[in-house]
Amino acid sequence: MLERMQPLITPPLEELKNTLGKAHDLGMASAVLNWEQETYMPHGGANHRADQLATLDLLAHQTFTDKRVGQLLEELKPLEADGDAQSFDASLIRVTRRDYDKATKFPSEFVEEISRAQNAAHFAWIEARKGDDFKGFQPHLETMFDLARRAADYLGFEDHPYDALLDGYEPGAKTAHIKTIFADLRQQTLPLLKAIQAKGDATDYSVLERSFPVEKQREFGLKIARALGLPEEYSRLDVSAHPFCTHFGPQDIRITTRFDEHYFPMSLFGTWHETGHGLYEHGVALELNRTPLAGGASLGVHESQSRLFENLICRSKPFWEHYYPQLEALVPEVTKGVSLEDFYKAINRVKADLIRVEADEVTYNFHVMLRFELETALLEGNLKVADLPEAWNAKMQDYLGVTPPNNAQGVLQDVHWSSGLIGYFPTYSLGNLLSVQLYNAAEAKLGNLHQMFGKGNFAPLLEWLRENVHQHGRKLLPDEIALRATGKPLEATDYVNYLKGKYSAIYGL
Amino acid sequence: MLERMQPLITPPLEELKNTLGKAHDLGMASAVLNWEQETYMPHGGANHRADQLATLDLLAHQTFTDKRVGQLLEELKPLEADGDAQSFDASLIRVTRRDYDKATKFPSEFVEEISRAQNAAHFAWIEARKGDDFKGFQPHLETMFDLARRAADYLGFEDHPYDALLDGYEPGAKTAHIKTIFADLRQQTLPLLKAIQAKGDATDYSVLERSFPVEKQREFGLKIARALGLPEEYSRLDVSAHPFCTHFGPQDIRITTRFDEHYFPMSLFGTWHETGHGLYEHGVALELNRTPLAGGASLGVHESQSRLFENLICRSKPFWEHYYPQLEALVPEVTKGVSLEDFYKAINRVKADLIRVEADEVTYNFHVMLRFELETALLEGNLKVADLPEAWNAKMQDYLGVTPPNNAQGVLQDVHWSSGLIGYFPTYSLGNLLSVQLYNAAEAKLGNLHQMFGKGNFAPLLEWLRENVHQHGRKLLPDEIALRATGKPLEATDYVNYLKGKYSAIYGL
Repeated sequence: MLERMQPLITPPLEELKNTLGKAHDLGMASAVLNWEQETYMPHGGANHRADQLATLDLLAHQTFTDKRVGQLLEELKPLEADGDAQSFDASLIRVTRRDYDKATKFPSEFVEEISRAQNAAHFAWIEARKGDDFKGFQPHLETMFDLARRAADYLGFEDHPYDALLDGYEPGAKTAHIKTIFADLRQQTLPLLKAIQAKGDATDYSVLERSFPVEKQREFGLKIARALGLPEEYSRLDVSAHPFCTHFGPQDIRITTRFDEHYFPMSLFGTWHETGHGLYEHGVALELNRTPLAGGASLGVHESQSRLFENLICRSKPFWEHYYPQLEALVPEVTKGVSLEDFYKAINRVKADLIRVEADEVTYNFHVMLRFELETALLEGNLKVADLPEAWNAKMQDYLGVTPPNNAQGVLQDVHWSSGLIGYFPTYSLGNLLSVQLYNAAEAKLGNLHQMFGKGNFAPLLEWLRENVHQHGRKLLPDEIALRATGKPLEATDYVNYLKGKYSAIYGL
Repeated sequence: MLERMQPLITPPLEELKNTLGKAHDLGMASAVLNWEQETYMPHGGANHRADQLATLDLLAHQTFTDKRVGQLLEELKPLEADGDAQSFDASLIRVTRRDYDKATKFPSEFVEEISRAQNAAHFAWIEARKGDDFKGFQPHLETMFDLARRAADYLGFEDHPYDALLDGYEPGAKTAHIKTIFADLRQQTLPLLKAIQAKGDATDYSVLERSFPVEKQREFGLKIARALGLPEEYSRLDVSAHPFCTHFGPQDIRITTRFDEHYFPMSLFGTWHETGHGLYEHGVALELNRTPLAGGASLGVHESQSRLFENLICRSKPFWEHYYPQLEALVPEVTKGVSLEDFYKAINRVKADLIRVEADEVTYNFHVMLRFELETALLEGNLKVADLPEAWNAKMQDYLGVTPPNNAQGVLQDVHWSSGLIGYFPTYSLGNLLSVQLYNAAEAKLGNLHQMFGKGNFAPLLEWLRENVHQHGRKLLPDEIALRATGKPLEATDYVNYLKGKYSAIYGL
């Protein structure tokens, strides 16, 4: 009888895991090739690399969307319903089914149509931005929003077509909920911004532009990334034109930064931002690797980690109480005549300006809200692409009190829409909000975190984040993470209070 | 009528090329991951990388050996027979069929058995070499030779089982022919070596060990690699524990080296050796990319290019007549008091010693011949693995007049056998011989090459090599390359005359 109990064929769960493992490996290989393209690849290798990535991505997609995966998921459905919803098996089936359903909803001709349109739109955007030529980009942008609307129809939605798109970046998030949160955020922080602007500012910010040798920026940035908890054994810092974090598994994390000898905040805070992303991926439980449960829960949750490390730790006063003397020792020529107080104010300067990626904590969310409002209006049919530049500029004036001198520094500044990333922008602000909500929950549990930062001690906070966020990978939805870790759904209150407290002090309001 | 002529399904040649392209891309992706593992990957990423490489290699193999590929090759057989054997289509079918037949000859259980045995043998070898423990490695080595013998049976052969193995590295080469060439080589160069040894040598070689800052080694090595013809647009130089060359297509060439501040020949000649490999891959016609026709014709032909650049160019007197003043300007502390003549002699020092990879031009081939003789004797059953150390040491004494003090510096020094690379060693010497035979043919066509090197002019030689060797990729067999490019099959004569001429002059024989 024992012999008959031994499986003669691979059991379904085993077979599913094998297939998912292969699809995952192909995705990770693609990540390696992408990372290498941005960091080391000689220019002339671009054509070969495009072939290789196309093949890897196609095979990963084919492997994951194979009909057999669907059959196995059907067979294994009981695992999902039975027992603990957070068990490995139940989570595996639940999350894989979610991904599988999404990945198989588009007819292959539609996937091809999107791919062709994105390619054309992306190149048109590069030219349009270069030549400040919105008209040249307009037909492509119309196509991208048309495709987005059709994508929403394929994916299905109950309340708003934007929900369907959003779900690809922030699973479970709803447009209506974001509208509510953002309204609250706007209502409470716009007066703060206006107050800061009204106050006037005679601070000398030139310390930020003093010559800081690139090698020393690298040394200092990396030393702190290590102190924050990113281990040398499992990670690297490299240089790329646009900073990013990627991973090839929780034990192989890559972050990049870029250096400007005459503007050190770019490399330093960039490195620490990516460190936050990297720590998240590094903290995902190893047992989830090579399955759809691996990786961060959403873009918003990911951004909460990068923002927490960049802003709540590395732009805090106690952090610099610990590290400023080390900075002074490393580059006395940079810090000469600059007090800790001045330095702290300089790296937290609030300045309403044109470009999202350069925005500070107070103004950043307005850049995001503006994009979210325009995206939803376009999808709803309440705004035409042709009227977008005007609408953009009007909102910039309303929120930030500035008007772009041209479209290149206005509506054409971001790559997202040209790449079909519609529904992506709000995740940046969701991340900001969640960062503080998580921080406060951690502090309620651990005691005064600033005291710990003042001693260079970040381990208790990291441990809390691992326990409550990182380890779960994609097992939990963003909302579940917020609720379990902070006791409430995501809202604007914590973030608003954080901004008010911090910036009232800095600006003496 | 026109409509009916449009293909409703993909034509067979198109379908074959698509499949081969995918298999090729997977192989190249694997090469990127391997390269990255040796150059940048943090140690802790090793487990993930092993998963990813296993998946890529499995999928590449499955894609290439799919039954459909066999069917298409059958259907397309007429292309092979018709017309010019060197046409793209005829070559594609011929070479793909050769590879396909080879790749499908092993039952999958045998492939698995080899893979497991290699893994075990490789780790056993690492331990055995560390602990100078041949006995610990012996059973693994017995297994590897047993598997090699069985592999030869699966692959099939006419005269000698070694032929079947050799063919995997040097297509078309025959054991009997190599025995003849090696006998000739041995007979004619052993007296040269003995004469050099008898002559005595009072030269001061300490220049080789003077402090030469690593950054300057890199600068000088790379400058010359560029001057030799390796373009920055399509290639990179990085650092790895063991120097190698790889490529991800003819427009993305990677070479690596390693640095020792107190022994510059390692990095410099290593860089130029890999430059030769890289120039070969870079010169393969772009139209062959993503097919089995891409890449070098064999290990031997590849080594002919690396040796030609390393030895025939970069260890020649005229090369240094051009570059020695530049070296003097870059690192006067290294060249101080050392004449060009002394320097030339130092970098061409002949010294019979224990380790193959450190051997000079005169002694190198003896290391190879010894291995070839032992490999063939083991396969023939004329030698037992247990008796290998003794046989090794006896031959070392016969050929080089030295006896290893232990097996770590003797029979255990190379990784090859532990990785199942049996039949690989002779390609090193075939490459040496071919390098001079090609060089002489080029000179017969182009005129005095040394005069060109004296002016830093390597372009005519590179162009000749591209025309006669590089561009053909795997279209031509090694023998065909030798015959077409030099007018005769590969033989020892040119190499022997080169050694006699060069080293009689250096040692005043």
